[in-house]
Amino acid sequence: MATDKSHSPADKPPNFRPALTPGRWDATAVHAYKDEGAAPFKDVTRQVLFADPAMAAEWRYFEVASGGHSTLERHEHVHAVMVHRGRGRCMVGAEIRDIASGDLVYVPAMTWHQFRATSDEPLGFLCLVNAARDKPQLPTAKELAALKRDRTVAAFVRT
Amino acid sequence: MATDKSHSPADKPPNFRPALTPGRWDATAVHAYKDEGAAPFKDVTRQVLFADPAMAAEWRYFEVASGGHSTLERHEHVHAVMVHRGRGRCMVGAEIRDIASGDLVYVPAMTWHQFRATSDEPLGFLCLVNAARDKPQLPTAKELAALKRDRTVAAFVRT
Repeated sequence: MATDKSHSPADKPPNFRPALTPGRWDATAVHAYKDEGAAPFKDVTRQVLFADPAMAAEWRYFEVASGGHSTLERHEHVHAVMVHRGRGRCMVGAEIRDIASGDLVYVPAMTWHQFRATSDEPLGFLCLVNAARDKPQLPTAKELAALKRDRTVAAFVRT
Repeated sequence: MATDKSHSPADKPPNFRPALTPGRWDATAVHAYKDEGAAPFKDVTRQVLFADPAMAAEWRYFEVASGGHSTLERHEHVHAVMVHRGRGRCMVGAEIRDIASGDLVYVPAMTWHQFRATSDEPLGFLCLVNAARDKPQLPTAKELAALKRDRTVAAFVRT
């Protein structure tokens, strides 16, 4: 109906979408991070901010609740990340760093990575990927054992 | 030199780049918005946050000083925008809106657009574009006259 102002997921979103509260936007649905049981993670939501046929990339927003974590994974495609709100820690390869609002993170191809929120604050981050990309890989038991030979990595990762 | 930890523009930036102050990042150069005289604009800087051969898009940050404005232009490529700091107003086609930190803006293909900072605050925004894209077009005198037939547009645009 011409008078219906609601936006179904199939609709093209409006050109202006105000932030409603930190990490929530007008006409932008909040989804489960991944299908239940598809991969290990804890307390993460996913929003697609921009995914347009005219764009070669997708711009997503992930929010990890306090104490939660993203999936430990790697893939051929790269991630360009900016922390949008809160704070946490992030592993990229063997490097583990505190991250907070505004910080930039780059995840190179085939590099194990994981994001964790701190115990008292959510971690919300913007994540840019190519629209055409491969599926994430989870570590095999052997790969995980190899990763955990680094004690700092062993203490950080959640699977 | 192997012991030199500085980053020349040709270097690949480090995987972690902390925000130093709002709108400024470690190992990320601040540039003039456009070449002097190339197009009309006022008090704008440009930073390339991510531009990697493995990425199909570039993620940039523009900051318009208080009272400044971006170029009034259009192009075939689209813009995906998030306001990062401050506030201002934005025109996309015939629509002019107040925008503030966190808000999302989409600029469709061949749509006249311009960003203006308010008189008392800078406007910093993230802008995603395809790596392969066409050059912006400026309005001809005839096109500008046509645009200005809309009084609201006429009052907003700066050229």
